[in-house]
Amino acid sequence: MTDDPPNPALLPAGLFDLLPPEAEREAALVEAMMGVFALHGYERVRPPLLEFEDSLLAGSGAAVAEQTFRLMDPVSQRMMGLRADTTPQVARIAATRLAQVPRPLRLSYSGQVLRVRGTQLAPERQMPQAGVELIGAASAAADAEVAVVAVEALAAVGVSGVSLDITLPRMAPALLDAAGVEGALRGRLARALDGKDAARVAALAAEAGPPAVGLTALLAAAGPADGALEALAAAALPPTARAIADNAAAVVEAIRARAPGLRITLDPVEFRGFRYHTGVAFTLYGEGRVGELARGGRYLSLGDEPATGMTLYPDVVLRAAPEGAPRPRVFLPLGTAPEVGRRLRARGFATVAALSAADTPAALRCTHVAREGGEPVPLGKD
Amino acid sequence: MTDDPPNPALLPAGLFDLLPPEAEREAALVEAMMGVFALHGYERVRPPLLEFEDSLLAGSGAAVAEQTFRLMDPVSQRMMGLRADTTPQVARIAATRLAQVPRPLRLSYSGQVLRVRGTQLAPERQMPQAGVELIGAASAAADAEVAVVAVEALAAVGVSGVSLDITLPRMAPALLDAAGVEGALRGRLARALDGKDAARVAALAAEAGPPAVGLTALLAAAGPADGALEALAAAALPPTARAIADNAAAVVEAIRARAPGLRITLDPVEFRGFRYHTGVAFTLYGEGRVGELARGGRYLSLGDEPATGMTLYPDVVLRAAPEGAPRPRVFLPLGTAPEVGRRLRARGFATVAALSAADTPAALRCTHVAREGGEPVPLGKD
Repeated sequence: MTDDPPNPALLPAGLFDLLPPEAEREAALVEAMMGVFALHGYERVRPPLLEFEDSLLAGSGAAVAEQTFRLMDPVSQRMMGLRADTTPQVARIAATRLAQVPRPLRLSYSGQVLRVRGTQLAPERQMPQAGVELIGAASAAADAEVAVVAVEALAAVGVSGVSLDITLPRMAPALLDAAGVEGALRGRLARALDGKDAARVAALAAEAGPPAVGLTALLAAAGPADGALEALAAAALPPTARAIADNAAAVVEAIRARAPGLRITLDPVEFRGFRYHTGVAFTLYGEGRVGELARGGRYLSLGDEPATGMTLYPDVVLRAAPEGAPRPRVFLPLGTAPEVGRRLRARGFATVAALSAADTPAALRCTHVAREGGEPVPLGKD
Repeated sequence: MTDDPPNPALLPAGLFDLLPPEAEREAALVEAMMGVFALHGYERVRPPLLEFEDSLLAGSGAAVAEQTFRLMDPVSQRMMGLRADTTPQVARIAATRLAQVPRPLRLSYSGQVLRVRGTQLAPERQMPQAGVELIGAASAAADAEVAVVAVEALAAVGVSGVSLDITLPRMAPALLDAAGVEGALRGRLARALDGKDAARVAALAAEAGPPAVGLTALLAAAGPADGALEALAAAALPPTARAIADNAAAVVEAIRARAPGLRITLDPVEFRGFRYHTGVAFTLYGEGRVGELARGGRYLSLGDEPATGMTLYPDVVLRAAPEGAPRPRVFLPLGTAPEVGRRLRARGFATVAALSAADTPAALRCTHVAREGGEPVPLGKD
């Protein structure tokens, strides 16, 4: 739809109008993805946009506390927050209203989240989310299920060629714990890992002692999953780290069983951005420069219940998904019988009824005109 | 889904979780109604949940100013509001980003709105809305179109037997203006009309003089549209009031042409709850005690552009709509080949995969079990 460039003073920074046809496309792809979740037995919940701060920021919600808008509830005089993430709300529902429902519990959700500040790379302060949470299942099969369901949801809206990036956010801390690395040295090692600075990691790890030396090998192991898993298998790892590596291998195997063609990479010592994840953490990337399509992984839900999930980002999916053909629009001249419009709509045409003699098919961006008798004639071909 | 009674301390008053299966039903009926709007040429926009207070409360937004949550934008240091209604945002989009798009402009929207306080009758403080706005068309045909499109959207989700209540919010003020009724007497007359107190309206109107006397007849005229229009035609009305009456007759005629079977009532002097409406105002009621399914009518959009629209209330529609049959859920025992699940989902079954030997079809609320070979067998019939 023709539009003027947005007036920057009109809306707060990071808040946008979605216009035709993008708003329709985004809604359609959210519902298509939710449909895939439903076919895998995930049942939809819709928590409110606002709730008490203390329940909103409990559990995994603590990770987004700084990004959460707060406001006073005039009714209760208690502080409320506008959700910055939906997973903590689903966890609350699972632990309270659905506490008695047998596990594993499969829940899905879609809706908007808001955050106080955008970043230079991601200026948006309102974002749609659509996701699944699988609560009460600790197995590698559960992690594999949510990852594969997310990939299938993307495929359903035409986004293929995605790659799944697996990280193990507890691996680096486990190695540092085993080496007894604490204080300033631990901070320097964490920053060096963060920056993927292999030389510095090697120097600091040598200073820290044997189990930390494993970090160098694991940093180099990042890449396609098979090679990374081989490197993990060959590495000398203390027991906690070995358990993390074995679990990663089991998750990859379970994913391969369900989605043999999926491209999987594994970065064993990456730990950024997954502050509440306890096992594998997932990121789904699109082809080219599209960005992160989804994030997820294993976490502890309320009451330390094992849980795993995936959150898809429909605004990013919108940029990655192919544009469908626009729906043909048929102009109904003044005086067209209502039955003609009904028949055309039943055939999938959008109808645009003239409301006055001034309305013209071209101005109303119609592709067809309903001729007498009701057949749609392409514009300019009559 | 089994659930415990909600803990009242868990969520702020008037804010609720929608659980399975209601959350799914509500989402499905919103999309079905939006689909009807799209078939009539309405194009979806998605304004943000938050915007600057001054633009959110401009125009028709002033009507919900007291109900709007405000919060400070830490980026701009300006006050923002959480939308309490979507129509003012659509008006802003039409007047700014879509200012150059030829009129009439047909836009649709769906999303949540929030308000500061609920009422005893309507405690909810977050409500879904789905609606259409038809901007830049002043004709009776435009009013008829939005009313009939809303009725069709309700029919598409199985809500039939609705009745359309038309009011003329400017009629009573026009009669009082013509009679020169001002000050305390005008206030008393407005309250008597509000209470539908015919005896008191008659007494006060007699005191006010001839054109106000018409109020008594119009109060009595409320009822089925044909009778009400006859009473309006027979009444002695000053010119402004006559124009309002003639327009009402034209709108009813245009609706009848499009939806001959629709039950229409007309209450010429009702004016409550339509603070920004300038012509006809609409309310759609369901059968029985279901409440208001939709509201709308004619208003002046930004820049005094003529506009008309309808807002449907999906939470009310949810109570009025028939429950569809639940989707059958097929349990996939451990070790079921992925292809079996794929085939069942392609046939419309939801599949629920066992993730451990502890998972059972009954606990996971499955209706069927996938037998070897992949055929779904109803639970308890194997």
